[in-house]
Amino acid sequence: MLSVAVQAFNERGYDATSMGELAERLGTSKSAIYYHVSGKEELLRLALEHALGNLERLLVQPDVVEAAATERLERVIRGAVHVLVQELPFVTLLLRLRGNTDVEREALARRREFDHAVAKLVEEAIEDGALRSDVDARTATRLLFGMVNSVVEWYRPGGGLTADRLADNVVAMAFEGLRA
Amino acid sequence: MLSVAVQAFNERGYDATSMGELAERLGTSKSAIYYHVSGKEELLRLALEHALGNLERLLVQPDVVEAAATERLERVIRGAVHVLVQELPFVTLLLRLRGNTDVEREALARRREFDHAVAKLVEEAIEDGALRSDVDARTATRLLFGMVNSVVEWYRPGGGLTADRLADNVVAMAFEGLRA
Repeated sequence: MLSVAVQAFNERGYDATSMGELAERLGTSKSAIYYHVSGKEELLRLALEHALGNLERLLVQPDVVEAAATERLERVIRGAVHVLVQELPFVTLLLRLRGNTDVEREALARRREFDHAVAKLVEEAIEDGALRSDVDARTATRLLFGMVNSVVEWYRPGGGLTADRLADNVVAMAFEGLRA
Repeated sequence: MLSVAVQAFNERGYDATSMGELAERLGTSKSAIYYHVSGKEELLRLALEHALGNLERLLVQPDVVEAAATERLERVIRGAVHVLVQELPFVTLLLRLRGNTDVEREALARRREFDHAVAKLVEEAIEDGALRSDVDARTATRLLFGMVNSVVEWYRPGGGLTADRLADNVVAMAFEGLRA
């Protein structure tokens, strides 16, 4: 049910999707949906929780907590690429939020917290001397997310590019650069 | 008039913006607008032409045409960052297009042509041995655009980060990577 709702929200926009349309897509009745969830907003909340929970878990992986900042950063980036590829519709919904409702604003606040945690890793890695100091930490973090998040715009599942290969490319470009 | 229209399209969405609302924002009448343009669609066409024209010109700068592929690529990326910063609302409109009308679909086709031209530069630079060959050219191009285009989501004019400094950061990260 959640996957069908997320697909509808991404295609039509959350505001424009009615419970009637969701029932039709699910081949069921509105009352059958209300038996499981309190309404459209709970579906949105559950979908965003799924995307955010998967991203937030990356920050507390045991091997991430113990390593040096630059290692942790690399693992979080690799993990984020995997979450984007595996949960593409859910993360797409998260990244396109406009913040019109409380549920959306709460999710945007959690997304900002996640971004801040990654920005802190970039800062720590610069302080450790592992990353170059002539690039602004905040700008570097935003460009990193620009790269990673763009995946929802162009990645096609089953198109031959695996999540592992994509993560390798992102990490290679971000850390070593394209120069031969 | 074009700037006001672009601001309205970005804030409210093109479909949701009426000629009446544009007249109100401009402090004029609908007939006064129709004196200058044939309608909402011509405003959209002119705005997208402005964004696309500025990007396309980057590919035919004299110093870009003559240099090696990797030099040309760097100059196009630097130029694109400047266009994004200087024409932020216009490029934002371009990047958020959904392709619902002929004008939008035409603009999206031109944007794809621009992307292909940049992808060709990446391929040439890899063939020249100037860029690493273990990263897919298409993926690298998409990640490059992901970085550059993300600027419309987070860049705040007057926030202290100049276009030159931002372009330096983008080029440093893309070509040399963040590793110290």
